[in-house]
Amino acid sequence: MIRHTGNVFVLSAPSGAGKSTLRERLIQNIRDLTFSISYTTRSPRAGEVDGQDYFFLDNPTFDRMLAEGGFVEWVEVYGKRYGTGRKWIQERLDAGVDILLDIETVGAKNVREEIPDAVMIFLLPPDAEALSRRLRGRGKDSEEQIQMRLRYARHEMSEFGHYDYLVVNGDLETAYRQMESIILATRCRRERMMPIAQRILDSFPALDQVQR
Amino acid sequence: MIRHTGNVFVLSAPSGAGKSTLRERLIQNIRDLTFSISYTTRSPRAGEVDGQDYFFLDNPTFDRMLAEGGFVEWVEVYGKRYGTGRKWIQERLDAGVDILLDIETVGAKNVREEIPDAVMIFLLPPDAEALSRRLRGRGKDSEEQIQMRLRYARHEMSEFGHYDYLVVNGDLETAYRQMESIILATRCRRERMMPIAQRILDSFPALDQVQR
Repeated sequence: MIRHTGNVFVLSAPSGAGKSTLRERLIQNIRDLTFSISYTTRSPRAGEVDGQDYFFLDNPTFDRMLAEGGFVEWVEVYGKRYGTGRKWIQERLDAGVDILLDIETVGAKNVREEIPDAVMIFLLPPDAEALSRRLRGRGKDSEEQIQMRLRYARHEMSEFGHYDYLVVNGDLETAYRQMESIILATRCRRERMMPIAQRILDSFPALDQVQR
Repeated sequence: MIRHTGNVFVLSAPSGAGKSTLRERLIQNIRDLTFSISYTTRSPRAGEVDGQDYFFLDNPTFDRMLAEGGFVEWVEVYGKRYGTGRKWIQERLDAGVDILLDIETVGAKNVREEIPDAVMIFLLPPDAEALSRRLRGRGKDSEEQIQMRLRYARHEMSEFGHYDYLVVNGDLETAYRQMESIILATRCRRERMMPIAQRILDSFPALDQVQR
């Protein structure tokens, strides 16, 4: 189990829901919020930078980290592995920095087990039609692939009952504001604020006799 | 127990913490958020409007409402009674409107019993010195009264462990943004969003066979 002073936010969404755009704006605008960089055994794509987009490593190194319990969660997709590094996260939490994890539903469940008070956010498209329009707009997928993505989106969304917050990305500004609110509100939670509140209380003179 | 679709927010703070200013800005700026108007047996002060500042009523009428279970909570201060009307709140919650209750710590505890998922927010001054400066700045109280208020502030603040969120009003803009975030985030909670999310899910084609 990971001990922490910073907060952990987990963001999941079906492909095309607008997760990357929102994530980048959050990281840019909110102080002391950092994005979790995953470890992967896949090769860097054009333009990807080691230690920025991913930590790229070979299979034996991934195996060694795995054996040492070095991952909070990991998954294998198409023969390539992706994992969230325990030490990397722990160092940032200890420094009081909040971490945003962009992770699919299986990995999210594992994070929840390791970090029970992680704040889980699921981002939803407004409906199937809007999502298919967005996927077509990206121009990356064939019609068959889009149909597959829609079916898989339903599969992923069937997990939203395990999340704390559900945000619908119908309008980007509204969705951004809601995401930001979830992060700012979490920072005001009693458990998090108790040491500060206690210090404020201690600055006050003690009550001896007060009549209402 | 009050059943509801809207959310109930309870705001408590020691005198001088800036509660009224924040409350008014929240009500003005956030849609579908309304301020709970209390019932009281005290007389209207100059400029106070019945049905806007308070519902003013006489002692027999208050007694009758009380006997009928018409109050979610009530308190007596200096021989005058103040209560939150059950029917008034229920009607607004049924209409999906969120309600902000401005209430001291004793009343807040009673609200929590009647409405277990009420979102409880405690507003704190940054420290005793800042609060005494603000109280002196208002020019309403004698030095003796200010000392009394400081002691009573400590007494009220000792209850903050019963609240969900703690907001420190050191800077008004920051405190406002935090209060607003708590309200907006609450509206994204899973329990609240489930019907909408389910409708979105149902708009998607079912998964028959998908390979990852």
